[in-house]
Amino acid sequence: MLRLFKRFGGLRLKTLSVPHQQSYKLSTNASISEMQREKETFQDFLPGIIDSLMTKSKFAGIPEVAEWTKEVLQYNLQGGKKTRGLTTTYAYETLESPENITEETIKVSRAMGWCVEMLHAYFLVMDDIMDGSTKRRGLPCWYLQPNVGLGAINDSILINASIYETLNVHCGNLPLYRNIVDLFNEAILYTSVGQHLDYTMAHRNKNDYSLFTVERYSSIVKYKTAYYTYKLPVCLGLLLTNNADPETHKRAEEICLEIGHLFQMQNLAEHTTVKILHTIRYLYNQLAFNVEPKEKLHKTHKSSILQAYLKRTQNSRGSGPVG
Amino acid sequence: MLRLFKRFGGLRLKTLSVPHQQSYKLSTNASISEMQREKETFQDFLPGIIDSLMTKSKFAGIPEVAEWTKEVLQYNLQGGKKTRGLTTTYAYETLESPENITEETIKVSRAMGWCVEMLHAYFLVMDDIMDGSTKRRGLPCWYLQPNVGLGAINDSILINASIYETLNVHCGNLPLYRNIVDLFNEAILYTSVGQHLDYTMAHRNKNDYSLFTVERYSSIVKYKTAYYTYKLPVCLGLLLTNNADPETHKRAEEICLEIGHLFQMQNLAEHTTVKILHTIRYLYNQLAFNVEPKEKLHKTHKSSILQAYLKRTQNSRGSGPVG
Repeated sequence: MLRLFKRFGGLRLKTLSVPHQQSYKLSTNASISEMQREKETFQDFLPGIIDSLMTKSKFAGIPEVAEWTKEVLQYNLQGGKKTRGLTTTYAYETLESPENITEETIKVSRAMGWCVEMLHAYFLVMDDIMDGSTKRRGLPCWYLQPNVGLGAINDSILINASIYETLNVHCGNLPLYRNIVDLFNEAILYTSVGQHLDYTMAHRNKNDYSLFTVERYSSIVKYKTAYYTYKLPVCLGLLLTNNADPETHKRAEEICLEIGHLFQMQNLAEHTTVKILHTIRYLYNQLAFNVEPKEKLHKTHKSSILQAYLKRTQNSRGSGPVG
Repeated sequence: MLRLFKRFGGLRLKTLSVPHQQSYKLSTNASISEMQREKETFQDFLPGIIDSLMTKSKFAGIPEVAEWTKEVLQYNLQGGKKTRGLTTTYAYETLESPENITEETIKVSRAMGWCVEMLHAYFLVMDDIMDGSTKRRGLPCWYLQPNVGLGAINDSILINASIYETLNVHCGNLPLYRNIVDLFNEAILYTSVGQHLDYTMAHRNKNDYSLFTVERYSSIVKYKTAYYTYKLPVCLGLLLTNNADPETHKRAEEICLEIGHLFQMQNLAEHTTVKILHTIRYLYNQLAFNVEPKEKLHKTHKSSILQAYLKRTQNSRGSGPVG
């Protein structure tokens, strides 16, 4: 699976340590322009996906709601890196025998990729309401748009329904269609599990820090992010090659969850060292640590990451009610 | 399908007019004690359903969230008439050849029935947040429970995930499993379509009454209620008999949507004449009708229903933001 890791490398990771295997140093520079082209091609594919949803799925019979759903999708699928959607096609291209790759199968992989992006949007729309966020990808959150409000909750169900309708239109005839639908259902289950663990952290009793452990941090990363960001796209690619072997999927899951963990730690650590050092001081005071943050923060990589996580959680506790 | 209509008769309807067919006068009195027994049996089945969800599904690997999901389900599945869940088993018993009905197939129909009740709960939890409701089935709404708040949005996704996990545990080996999952996805799509149409009515421009038409009322009833209340349970019963014939399902859908329309009109009309006559006066004034409601209300059955609907919509406009 080295080629696939290289693709991941193109997205962010510089060095990847796979457990029980040797470490690989991955080169990323060569693929940046290729990445950009692939992203543009993927982006150009969206109008066709939405169009088929409006004309070939059950939405076709309900023009008023179809039009609204189009707006919901267009707003909430803009911006972002599209990492998850692109990874779906990368995974397929990497895992499939070259002689089986056709224009048609690549199109199906892109449709699947957009379904993964819809799943992402489904959770972001609801997450923003729960957290009382105001901005998402530089734009006002969907629920803060005029004429939306808490109707955004139902709009997120329309996004969710769009996933299954898109799958039906583009993958309904695939032999492993059932497995594909089950994989999306699994990703939704685990992501909501992660959301629950995270929400419980953020809304715990003010003085209770018993949940602040590395184990819980790992658990939240695994369920809230790694399943739908890494396992879902990779295993979709695998299913598109007609591989439903449970052992292969289990091994792919193990590797994907490990990558997800590393990526999340790297992401948080960067965030920490560049931007939020001074606000961590506040947390240190809250926790009654008698040290300056700088001193402790760089002691180990892992502890700095945990501190960043604690800080983020601390911040999100203050979210007010949603208007 | 007359036997099935009689069961529906046992639930509420007294007289049923099926289009292009003769009218049937249905007797309901005989089945009331039988109904009660069946409801108790159905209710007794829930702990087993939840237990299998906690021990045999993906929740088994996440005890903390499994325990929370159990609480979410127990709270939100209590009370109510359980019409939808019971109808699933009735439909199966009515449509299946007697020699094929076994204790095992009845159990599967009850598991499916509880999935329909979960789908109902999924929408109620979110509906209550969107409407700013305070009570549901005589209890405080879930989002108003201590330690819940807007986390209820994610809890509703856990309910949704419980549907697919329960289906996987109890129906995963059925030949028409794919059709069963697709039927749930269809019901979720159409219900959210109905929710959107209804929400748009309630949050329209204050002086815009252009949406107040019988056509739109019919459309809302069809999508928001009739699909998951009537079509879903009946077609699940049909699928459990291994009947996936599109023509039969289409005809069943037509009949179910007609029943749903009649039921909803009867329900609203009863509500109107007993409880809300005086508040309709307020709406009449708003609409600048120069007549007393009583005079106009009983002119035709249909107009009284529409008035009741207008009134409900008018009331729901005042919902404040959710805390």
